[in-house]
Amino acid sequence: MSTSFTMIGGEGPNSYREHSKYQGALVIAAKEKINEAISTKLDIDFTSNLVNIADFGCSSGPNTFTAVQTLIDAVENKYKKESNIEGIEFQVFFNDSSNNDFNTLFKTLPPARLYFASGVPGSFFGRVLPKNSLHVGVSSYSLHFVSKVPKEIKDRDSPVWNKDIHCSGSSKEVVKLYLGQYKIDVGSFLTARAQELVSGGLLLLLGSCRPNGVQMFETVEGMMIDFIGSSLNEIANQGLIDQQKLDTFKLPIYAPNVDELKQIIEDNKCFTIEVFEKISHAKGEYPLDPEYLTSAFKVTVGGSVASLFGQDAMEKTYELVKEKTQEMLPQIAKAKPGMQYLIVLRRN
Amino acid sequence: MSTSFTMIGGEGPNSYREHSKYQGALVIAAKEKINEAISTKLDIDFTSNLVNIADFGCSSGPNTFTAVQTLIDAVENKYKKESNIEGIEFQVFFNDSSNNDFNTLFKTLPPARLYFASGVPGSFFGRVLPKNSLHVGVSSYSLHFVSKVPKEIKDRDSPVWNKDIHCSGSSKEVVKLYLGQYKIDVGSFLTARAQELVSGGLLLLLGSCRPNGVQMFETVEGMMIDFIGSSLNEIANQGLIDQQKLDTFKLPIYAPNVDELKQIIEDNKCFTIEVFEKISHAKGEYPLDPEYLTSAFKVTVGGSVASLFGQDAMEKTYELVKEKTQEMLPQIAKAKPGMQYLIVLRRN
Repeated sequence: MSTSFTMIGGEGPNSYREHSKYQGALVIAAKEKINEAISTKLDIDFTSNLVNIADFGCSSGPNTFTAVQTLIDAVENKYKKESNIEGIEFQVFFNDSSNNDFNTLFKTLPPARLYFASGVPGSFFGRVLPKNSLHVGVSSYSLHFVSKVPKEIKDRDSPVWNKDIHCSGSSKEVVKLYLGQYKIDVGSFLTARAQELVSGGLLLLLGSCRPNGVQMFETVEGMMIDFIGSSLNEIANQGLIDQQKLDTFKLPIYAPNVDELKQIIEDNKCFTIEVFEKISHAKGEYPLDPEYLTSAFKVTVGGSVASLFGQDAMEKTYELVKEKTQEMLPQIAKAKPGMQYLIVLRRN
Repeated sequence: MSTSFTMIGGEGPNSYREHSKYQGALVIAAKEKINEAISTKLDIDFTSNLVNIADFGCSSGPNTFTAVQTLIDAVENKYKKESNIEGIEFQVFFNDSSNNDFNTLFKTLPPARLYFASGVPGSFFGRVLPKNSLHVGVSSYSLHFVSKVPKEIKDRDSPVWNKDIHCSGSSKEVVKLYLGQYKIDVGSFLTARAQELVSGGLLLLLGSCRPNGVQMFETVEGMMIDFIGSSLNEIANQGLIDQQKLDTFKLPIYAPNVDELKQIIEDNKCFTIEVFEKISHAKGEYPLDPEYLTSAFKVTVGGSVASLFGQDAMEKTYELVKEKTQEMLPQIAKAKPGMQYLIVLRRN
């Protein structure tokens, strides 16, 4: 019953690899804060001479390589000052669902890396690593997924049927159901990571949320996904895809607001929030470029559209999305800002 | 300069997965001996509540799943008797070169497995895991690879040019050069594993070698590869592939004899040989079936032929191989037996 939502693999021009540069910039923007957090908050011993690092939701790269190298550099910096770290080795676990393109990830590993690499297939809503085996974990742009879409909102005959293809924020009932699932899932994620992390280990979360008071449909992301929804409706009206199928198509994503996310972490009780900060990109939010925006939401959402409606319908949909994006550029320019966050949690 | 030699991936009828059942039977045939070796020779402590298992040269499955489950069952059996193993977790590292089809491996992992799975890309002639992190390692039908073919034997103008496409045993000089490289490579393999294994940990090797005094060309394997060589020569004569290219095509495999293999292990000095035994398949060696034999040597050697000469030439070659196999069936029936081995090494 779970909804699959996998980034487009491979290394081609329409791959997630090629289009995830914007998300990758977040790690770079947050680098100094990550260094500081690891320097002051990480508290592990090295009796085994091994530091285990993991990226949960690594996709097929290359952002994951930047992220894990940033963590390794920070750990090395910290302990170089404090003690003799000669002989310490790093092992990196790249985790994603078993549908992820691990072949591409492995073929593009940095050749000069100074760590042992391994891929860990499996849902990060459950355990994927042994108990007390992890020192530093990171998850970038992954914690907006829910493991399944609440079934009531997919049912056209239900009073809480969601007319949008995502949680746009236009219906309070829909938000409540999405948020309910999101709480369960992020709770499961945190509980699994809490078992995997050693006491004193750190979990870094990077991603996108909403400032309190901002609704999804008011943000660039929300607008773009709404364009995908209305484009799908248009091609359904043309008879190119099945309207009934479209009625059940709801993306398994939820962008929490700041208070919601904080509350879920606090309710879990396994972690201390050491950092919860807004990270600003050098380039601001999204560039105001219809081509770029369409492509960015094609490599992420396009895979789901194609798997349900076929490649042709997906291509036609995105032609319409590009037109709408072009038309609505002035409105996109006035979108309310989302928020890119860095959260650092310390395992109690 | 290294020669790539990757099993054909995927799950189709011509994949290595489908045709490796015969090799998989070796693990099953050796199961009792593996149990006994682990029960009496493994000597590790469980302070971390974690047992790490690795398969070096796992390919895309499914034999690797049988192999690692056999090891896990044996470890559990041993410690169930001795102590309370509640709370002990198993982590399995599936290692193969980064060209291996890990996507298929991950998608076909046994759903009911009770271990944490991870894929480790990289050449097993070097380190792929952290120091002192491994408790039991296994390698099945992988230690007949050499990391590169000695260049003299690929050079048509060299006095030691190898007229065969493999180390058939017909030239002593060629054997000497292949064996030289084999010693280096297996030495590197053992040295890397010795660093990864904890003291008291076990390394199990399963595979195919030659009884002392038997030459490769006298065995079924040797004959089949010679048929591939002569078939390639025929299609080169027909002008379908380049003769000069064929002159340099030498398989990166060497089947040692028993004494050679023992000597290499002893020279390495890191391990004690606990078991070195011949394992007999229930079905004897290869079935005397031209279709089966051709297919078995297509999924292993065919990939290399196709990557150098193209898919069409490969298909044509194997049509000839099947004809030759059919014709030579009486000779194959009289082939000298190879030897399937189980070796158990204990890290000193």
